[in-house]
Amino acid sequence: MASSSSLTLSQAILSRSSIPRHGSVHPPSAASSLYLPSFNGLKSTSSTTSYAIRRRGPTTTRPSIRASAAVETLEKTTEIELIEKSINTIRFLAIDAVEKANSGHPGLPMGCAPIGHILYDEVMKYNPKNPYWFNRDRFVLSAGHGCMLQYALLHLAGYDSVKEEDLTSFRQWGSKTPGHPENFETPGVEVTTGPLGQGIANAVGLAVAEKHLAARYNKPDNEIVDHYTYCILGDGCQMEGISNEVCSLAGHWGLGKLIAFYDDNHISIDGDTEIAFTESVDTRFEGLGWHVIWVKNGNTGYDEIRAAIKEAKAVKDKPTLIKVTTTIGYGSPNKANSYSVHGSALGAKEVEATRKNLGWPYEPFHVPDDVKKHWSRHASEGAALEGEWNAKFAEYEKKYPEEAAELKSIITGELPAGWEKALPTYTPESPADATRNLSQQNLNALAKVLPGLLGGSADLASSNMTLLKMFGDFQKNTPEERNVRFGVREHGMGAISNGIALHSPGLIPYCATFFVFTDYMRAAIRISALSEAGVIYVMTHDSIGLGEDGPTHQPIEHLASFRAMPNILMLRPAEGNETAGAYKVAVLNRKRPSILALSRQKLPQLPGTSIEGVEKGGYIISDNSSGNKPDVILIGTGSELEIAAKAADELRKEGKAVRVVSFVSWELFDEQSDKYKESVLPAAVTARVSIEAGSTFGWGKIVGAKGKAIGIDRFGASAPAGKIYKEFGITAEAVIAADKEVS
Amino acid sequence: MASSSSLTLSQAILSRSSIPRHGSVHPPSAASSLYLPSFNGLKSTSSTTSYAIRRRGPTTTRPSIRASAAVETLEKTTEIELIEKSINTIRFLAIDAVEKANSGHPGLPMGCAPIGHILYDEVMKYNPKNPYWFNRDRFVLSAGHGCMLQYALLHLAGYDSVKEEDLTSFRQWGSKTPGHPENFETPGVEVTTGPLGQGIANAVGLAVAEKHLAARYNKPDNEIVDHYTYCILGDGCQMEGISNEVCSLAGHWGLGKLIAFYDDNHISIDGDTEIAFTESVDTRFEGLGWHVIWVKNGNTGYDEIRAAIKEAKAVKDKPTLIKVTTTIGYGSPNKANSYSVHGSALGAKEVEATRKNLGWPYEPFHVPDDVKKHWSRHASEGAALEGEWNAKFAEYEKKYPEEAAELKSIITGELPAGWEKALPTYTPESPADATRNLSQQNLNALAKVLPGLLGGSADLASSNMTLLKMFGDFQKNTPEERNVRFGVREHGMGAISNGIALHSPGLIPYCATFFVFTDYMRAAIRISALSEAGVIYVMTHDSIGLGEDGPTHQPIEHLASFRAMPNILMLRPAEGNETAGAYKVAVLNRKRPSILALSRQKLPQLPGTSIEGVEKGGYIISDNSSGNKPDVILIGTGSELEIAAKAADELRKEGKAVRVVSFVSWELFDEQSDKYKESVLPAAVTARVSIEAGSTFGWGKIVGAKGKAIGIDRFGASAPAGKIYKEFGITAEAVIAADKEVS
Repeated sequence: MASSSSLTLSQAILSRSSIPRHGSVHPPSAASSLYLPSFNGLKSTSSTTSYAIRRRGPTTTRPSIRASAAVETLEKTTEIELIEKSINTIRFLAIDAVEKANSGHPGLPMGCAPIGHILYDEVMKYNPKNPYWFNRDRFVLSAGHGCMLQYALLHLAGYDSVKEEDLTSFRQWGSKTPGHPENFETPGVEVTTGPLGQGIANAVGLAVAEKHLAARYNKPDNEIVDHYTYCILGDGCQMEGISNEVCSLAGHWGLGKLIAFYDDNHISIDGDTEIAFTESVDTRFEGLGWHVIWVKNGNTGYDEIRAAIKEAKAVKDKPTLIKVTTTIGYGSPNKANSYSVHGSALGAKEVEATRKNLGWPYEPFHVPDDVKKHWSRHASEGAALEGEWNAKFAEYEKKYPEEAAELKSIITGELPAGWEKALPTYTPESPADATRNLSQQNLNALAKVLPGLLGGSADLASSNMTLLKMFGDFQKNTPEERNVRFGVREHGMGAISNGIALHSPGLIPYCATFFVFTDYMRAAIRISALSEAGVIYVMTHDSIGLGEDGPTHQPIEHLASFRAMPNILMLRPAEGNETAGAYKVAVLNRKRPSILALSRQKLPQLPGTSIEGVEKGGYIISDNSSGNKPDVILIGTGSELEIAAKAADELRKEGKAVRVVSFVSWELFDEQSDKYKESVLPAAVTARVSIEAGSTFGWGKIVGAKGKAIGIDRFGASAPAGKIYKEFGITAEAVIAADKEVS
Repeated sequence: MASSSSLTLSQAILSRSSIPRHGSVHPPSAASSLYLPSFNGLKSTSSTTSYAIRRRGPTTTRPSIRASAAVETLEKTTEIELIEKSINTIRFLAIDAVEKANSGHPGLPMGCAPIGHILYDEVMKYNPKNPYWFNRDRFVLSAGHGCMLQYALLHLAGYDSVKEEDLTSFRQWGSKTPGHPENFETPGVEVTTGPLGQGIANAVGLAVAEKHLAARYNKPDNEIVDHYTYCILGDGCQMEGISNEVCSLAGHWGLGKLIAFYDDNHISIDGDTEIAFTESVDTRFEGLGWHVIWVKNGNTGYDEIRAAIKEAKAVKDKPTLIKVTTTIGYGSPNKANSYSVHGSALGAKEVEATRKNLGWPYEPFHVPDDVKKHWSRHASEGAALEGEWNAKFAEYEKKYPEEAAELKSIITGELPAGWEKALPTYTPESPADATRNLSQQNLNALAKVLPGLLGGSADLASSNMTLLKMFGDFQKNTPEERNVRFGVREHGMGAISNGIALHSPGLIPYCATFFVFTDYMRAAIRISALSEAGVIYVMTHDSIGLGEDGPTHQPIEHLASFRAMPNILMLRPAEGNETAGAYKVAVLNRKRPSILALSRQKLPQLPGTSIEGVEKGGYIISDNSSGNKPDVILIGTGSELEIAAKAADELRKEGKAVRVVSFVSWELFDEQSDKYKESVLPAAVTARVSIEAGSTFGWGKIVGAKGKAIGIDRFGASAPAGKIYKEFGITAEAVIAADKEVS
């Protein structure tokens, strides 16, 4: 029997950073259990701070903040004093790191340090020595510019990814502490944030994954999946449309274990939010179906924050927004509550003034011993938490071996052996079909063998052909199902899919809309690529071939625009075998998202296509030349491969030696050996014609100066597809004419 | 004195379609004034329809709808009968057009025909014979798929752009009735919609333009700018994040003359909106600061609709959302209230059943005579409205000649003579500066001479350097100002700018964010390009040169992705003169948007640059070769032109004949003569090196098979800019090394 600790190992292997293995688990000691986070009732600590509470108001005078009592009682700190000291440690780690880098955002960490302290020190369950422990609570800093808050917390909590030298090299080349949180750089960071609104959307995805897996795998006697997702978002996130999209869905789905803190500090880069943001966020979130709590004193109202979290956990059928009114740059006597503290170092003078104001006598980057000691318990506590869970999993495995095997595959990302045999294959005699339909055959075949496959469309399921027929809808009361209904929310859909993908290595989310509407979700797709989230983008209606809907719906530049994007696979299969090949590639690439461009219109099955060919990106589907010296090479992708093949038939009748190349993925072809590339596109053969119903931008490199790229460099038109193809010259006749030009 | 009718002419000239000139204006006849839309109190018509009201409920049985009395009394229709007949005419024109095309969306026009009728027949002021009359009410169909509603209304109202033959050629090649509303195809259509949410955003932009111009130009004795903006949006628009962004702004700005109808039909493509959209839209809009009205019977409650509009007009400090509960596909006995009527033709059998159900005995595309007669008054009424306004303008011009001249320039789009003299110029001795700062110099210089220039940033004004120093903020109570504060709402910002640009030819909106965040607003930028909205996109922080913020903030593929987009200018100026050149091009291109990619970092002024050079897209800035035969051509853009120039200096020291080409806009260069192109990039010179801190995608065509493109084909990194440039090899040394490779 596989020991449950192997899960930990596999997850560690999957990460870029190698995390020390913590297979041997110690039971919690009496001492450490004293500090174990209480998840049913939160500790109430009397908040007797003597700080003047900084409240936003019409006055522009800056109230002075009295030095904390914490300093005066260094020798023997009380609990509240220790907590304030911890909070100030977080503040000053942020201040010092930004100061040293002379770049960064001190304002949010200074204002949100209390929330951060309470979450990481009192509320969240995690194991700092294994950031990939499956059942950890997830935390997302949607206001990613405030990343020093998270780095300070990871440092205090004992994550190996953020040591002192990482804090002092904040925002420097090669450091683990980049300018915004990046999951692929810093273990302990769950997702990549910074572009505003993405984080709250990722958090919704993480909470969806938890709710889905809990519903599928939890048993009355063993709740093996059980964690919360916490998120801090700011005014900027709130203004972005994507956050409304995903919060509408979170409310619809009743994600009770999603708890979001809205850092209501009334300051954005351009100044007071009054200048552009006067809506009632509370009312909006009530409309979205959230439970809303307002913590009026986020600066020192620790008990208010604790009580709000307790209340949020008690509300199980709705996500909770805790609006926490804070002072940006809290503690800075001259810059707090102003935009100047948002995105620049305080400057030596103001750092000094802030040290004085908050009573902080320490050197930069210093963590006081009592604070260090206070936080040090998290290593053993975390190990204990993971140990307990591992024991629980071992029991689960004994009792529910089938479910355990499935769940393990989701946790580790190890694909079930032989899964690829489920991929359908086709012969030239198989019926002609649209690749969107062939895509659905693949999705339905794969859903049977891949327990982590789930997804859906942005209200176009019946057009994108994305329904998994054997499953129902993932909904509030049926979260075990795998068809996700995103509504008309492309951007949110992409970012939620990123969250799902990054929840567990074996979750394989797919999402769908018309290819042209990748424009709505491009920011999320880019984050997929950057954050190594292997989302599968099922993008149908991929050209003028969609016909009558016209230019607003017809992609032109989209293929080129994704071919130019790093770490993403742009695949445009031509028919059945190629669609299966595209899915094989997409499923295997768990750290690189794939976009499948699929046709609305029916396409014939072609001789010479293969899954293996697709895996090489570009390959020969037919050739009547010899010695690697064709007279001309015709290159097509997707729905135009058929046209290239037809033109080849005609040209061969004329006695020409013609090679037809399917160029399904430029990125995969680029990765092949020079020898292979030469075998497909020999340098000596300059007579080349490409045909693709999209922008010719980029094709110059493939066809060369003497070749010709047939494509569309204008917007489309509203008419039946055949008519547009003809009027735009995307025809076999055009290919044949081009052959005369290039030969 | 220029006659006010010349405004009409200029506007007509600016449009693609030539609209007959209506210089001579007839005063309203007694008869027509009888029908003049009343703007203070709406006519109340008793709605005594006998239709069963179709209400959404748990039952799935389809109530039968009794045939209207209208048919039985063809000979002598009462007012209410005539209105119902008109409404059914709209429904059947849509049904018949979709049926003939066998493609389209009949559901919305059938459900929203009452709203459409009341707006175009009773409420809106417009002149069908001059769709470009400045002071017309604007209507936007945000749910653009329902375009047959708008085509039917334009047809009935007497617009020459939609004649019967246009209805019968719906969605066909070359028709004026494409699959979604396109302003550049169909006079009378204000903006281009279809991609959901764009329309309501455009409507906000139109209302912003009205509020701004009214505040600037209206006088106590002459309210020369005074119109409403109406919009119909559906569930899909409501789900899109962009609509929340812009509606939050509309509430913030108090756009009292924006009235939006939310077609609350509970059906989207995937079925009942229950599956993905259960939020309370009403509550959300209250939170956004809107006045919300619910019309419970949108199918036959004509008086309810009228009363709602009256109420909306009475609320002057808030935009109004009129939620109108309708039945999608109203009248179709077997398909109403289901997704099947949303996006497909009804089919001959169901069309027949619907004819019977609604009592419609007519042939396809027939407009009954009494309906035709009823609508025919709009031609004379519209002419009268425009005539009255022209007279008003003549008075205005007499009394306020300066303001009139400015307003006229905004209305006609004729740029003030000599405006380009305001553009700053630079010498190599001018101080080094970031192009974002140089951009601000241009904006501030241009704001003095271009009355229609206004805009702002998505909460990055102080980073994008977009503030116009002589103006204050456009706000609810200071709408005459020209600095627009969009908040962190890039997508909404772009689409609002499209609305502003399409309101009046002389409005020149600019909007700004970091270049990488064009990903958030790409759908709106594409609509700028498609709908010929000459928005200026001021996109700063255009490369890894932004440094520490890291890969989430560093554009890589963005230049390529826009170079591939049709009808848009991607400009990347290198320094002062080029920035001025980019602005000259951007201002002159009123039917093609421009994107200016600008540096965060300081750049030196370079010898050899010029505004004229920029206008050619690519040009030589230095050359020590003769006979158009340099040894090597070094090609740079933006911040890397300096690097190319430095490398050239080094290579020349080695005795090489080196040409340096600035390739500021590929699109403009493409438009030059072959002769000019050969003079810059002679075919015989294959030794070419390009350098650009972005994806090399697309450069293959420029440098050729023997050349080399230096760029970045991976994501960026968080570190000081100089360090990243060095690590990524974007250096003069790399150019010099590449010269050895290609020579």
